[in-house]
Amino acid sequence: MTNQRYDTISFLSDYGVRDEFVGIVKCVIADLAPHAKVIDLTHDIPPFDVRAGSLALARCISYVPTGIVLAVVDPGVGTTRRAVAVSVGGGRGVLIGPDNGLLSMGTALAGGAESAVVLNNPEYQLATPGTTFAGRDIFAPAAAHLCNGVPLAALGDAIDPNVLLPGVVPLSRVEGEETIAEITWVDRYGNCQLNVGPDDVSSYGSTLSITFTTATGERSSRSAVVAPNFSAIGGGIGLVIDSFGMLAISVDRGSAADALSLGVGDAVTLSALDDVGGVTTNVRLRRSQSTPE
Amino acid sequence: MTNQRYDTISFLSDYGVRDEFVGIVKCVIADLAPHAKVIDLTHDIPPFDVRAGSLALARCISYVPTGIVLAVVDPGVGTTRRAVAVSVGGGRGVLIGPDNGLLSMGTALAGGAESAVVLNNPEYQLATPGTTFAGRDIFAPAAAHLCNGVPLAALGDAIDPNVLLPGVVPLSRVEGEETIAEITWVDRYGNCQLNVGPDDVSSYGSTLSITFTTATGERSSRSAVVAPNFSAIGGGIGLVIDSFGMLAISVDRGSAADALSLGVGDAVTLSALDDVGGVTTNVRLRRSQSTPE
Amino acid sequence: MTNQRYDTISFLSDYGVRDEFVGIVKCVIADLAPHAKVIDLTHDIPPFDVRAGSLALARCISYVPTGIVLAVVDPGVGTTRRAVAVSVGGGRGVLIGPDNGLLSMGTALAGGAESAVVLNNPEYQLATPGTTFAGRDIFAPAAAHLCNGVPLAALGDAIDPNVLLPGVVPLSRVEGEETIAEITWVDRYGNCQLNVGPDDVSSYGSTLSITFTTATGERSSRSAVVAPNFSAIGGGIGLVIDSFGMLAISVDRGSAADALSLGVGDAVTLSALDDVGGVTTNVRLRRSQSTPE
Repeated sequence: MTNQRYDTISFLSDYGVRDEFVGIVKCVIADLAPHAKVIDLTHDIPPFDVRAGSLALARCISYVPTGIVLAVVDPGVGTTRRAVAVSVGGGRGVLIGPDNGLLSMGTALAGGAESAVVLNNPEYQLATPGTTFAGRDIFAPAAAHLCNGVPLAALGDAIDPNVLLPGVVPLSRVEGEETIAEITWVDRYGNCQLNVGPDDVSSYGSTLSITFTTATGERSSRSAVVAPNFSAIGGGIGLVIDSFGMLAISVDRGSAADALSLGVGDAVTLSALDDVGGVTTNVRLRRSQSTPE
Repeated sequence: MTNQRYDTISFLSDYGVRDEFVGIVKCVIADLAPHAKVIDLTHDIPPFDVRAGSLALARCISYVPTGIVLAVVDPGVGTTRRAVAVSVGGGRGVLIGPDNGLLSMGTALAGGAESAVVLNNPEYQLATPGTTFAGRDIFAPAAAHLCNGVPLAALGDAIDPNVLLPGVVPLSRVEGEETIAEITWVDRYGNCQLNVGPDDVSSYGSTLSITFTTATGERSSRSAVVAPNFSAIGGGIGLVIDSFGMLAISVDRGSAADALSLGVGDAVTLSALDDVGGVTTNVRLRRSQSTPE
Repeated sequence: MTNQRYDTISFLSDYGVRDEFVGIVKCVIADLAPHAKVIDLTHDIPPFDVRAGSLALARCISYVPTGIVLAVVDPGVGTTRRAVAVSVGGGRGVLIGPDNGLLSMGTALAGGAESAVVLNNPEYQLATPGTTFAGRDIFAPAAAHLCNGVPLAALGDAIDPNVLLPGVVPLSRVEGEETIAEITWVDRYGNCQLNVGPDDVSSYGSTLSITFTTATGERSSRSAVVAPNFSAIGGGIGLVIDSFGMLAISVDRGSAADALSLGVGDAVTLSALDDVGGVTTNVRLRRSQSTPE
């Protein structure tokens, strides 16, 4: 029986591209498995931000080709946190990374873990002058050896795939007539993705009220039209159905994050527009004018 | 008859690399056309800046290998702006992107459009939960299918290649003894490319006067030596014949953009040095000192 | 006799990825040697910073696969500085770049130069409208032609490999009971790599004193524990044995560079902790309070 071989490694990390970390990982892969193609998903996950990495991986996973997913956001590198490889989809894919929750949403969206090993076989690792670069010394060799047909079980001891550390999935919640959502991602253009889809808030109508706390601590409400694309927003604020089927607070040809001073993790309350008084925009609590500056 | 197949996709966008947009586009291509090599031209076109994208594409086009050019700067994504594929060079190349002027200079420099289709055949697109990521759902599949030998005509309805939206080409102009140029590009090093070549201003001599408006609204003139490389500038300001044959305002081992507070779109007047009084440097209109700050 | 052919080009530069420089170099390579795989080591060497480039190359070199190393940090581009190709490892590798010290540490770590040529054969260069982009016109074609089996000697005149410009290697020094080190690299996470390894300072104990000059010109001392990984630092300052076997000033899940206002080139004095008074932390020279602000 021939072992499964793989041709593609999809690679996500918080390494950035300012340093040579990503380049060295690719050198290790090219040296061990020259036939493997490496696809950079992104390397600009904020440093140490496991949750942001797990969300980005979740957004990617249904587009990733058959093969290896190498994901490294690893603040606990070199400690007892486990380095793991997780098989999904009947062996069509293997996710490799630290067991810190980073892989959990991606694994679940790929159909769930079928088997897993902890990467503790030094035969498939690089000898290292220091323990702080597991991407180079442990994860990249594991990915390359799998591409070459080394079976998963050879990379280390089998573990129960059900005890992998779960990620923290941010869920929205309904409170009375409101839905409390959270900004899970601000993209390059300043679109602020929420953890609600259009169906979740369809009862509020096609133009909603969104309420958030500004950078200066004030509550502010705006009306926002649900829009199929950015141009349909017009000059105001929109809730665009984004490319992942979620709602994103957006403005047309500009940054909603900048315009409204929003960031990842901010809570946003969605509700129906007040029929009587309309939406209250830009409620600002001003300091008394007698207060000396 | 065998259809033309392609091996290379040269990819330019305003997606940035902070998010996973570029990675997902590459996943889609790798999944559909694993043999295709993707070359990143750049993904750091400023968001929504169609003109900057078209200029960068124009600088690249004569170096791009035979194959597909995938260009996405697409503020009108999801609207009625057309997604197109344009054949050039007797089928040696196909440019794919939005019909918003982005492709126009590149197409012209590649010899002009010979045929074009609008990408409206859903059979060669991905089903999508939202319409805001045409790079993933429309453009990348089109590029991959062309690589696989799908004929251009299968991707959608033929359109007249002569009605593609033209780009806005910034032209310099001569006014009396002066040439009014524009900064079309500031590169990473701070070199400020002008839309004039050395022949356009050779009558002004080998050291010219350049006049521009500073960040504080003042007019400032400097002498600038025409130089074949950065070191030849010496300690002052130079007009280097850059790698595309245009003149760029430069300083040696430093940023001309920072030193002179120049940016893309700024007008720069070039003229002969005044023989009588020499060049007036750093003319600054000061506020009256009695003006309270 | 068949010439040596190569499949991999590992590419390091200060080109950044904001512009299309890297993309055009890859286009030239793909056009001339379609089989060659290009691995980006990094392109974010600070502009013109030959020393930072040579140090990054030194950190990469032992992981680079058999093949070509293309390194371009080239402030003297277009002048009489030589463009060179240097053979190492019995022809297993060739380093290509400017002869300005950039290649020196990498060459030495790869076993030393065995032969070298100056890249002055125009037959293997691109015709160019300007001399400022040697990466495109001279270095990339040389790399691609070597991949295709063109012998090194065909690219230009042989030169004595022993007269290549040496790099400036920053060495630490011992003064009495102290070791004066230098920060050679600040990575994305804010770890500050020193030019000393753990053996160099083991006599100072497992917790050392580090002294440096703050941004405001004051001397400050901190205790720092030598740690095998970031988590082992705990809440203070650590000297982590980094992935290259050097000591790096680090904090756990944060930026030491930000916390201590440290940067590349800063001197750091390491010594044993003072047994009597302990380490003096945060000595700050305050301005007299009677000084008007």
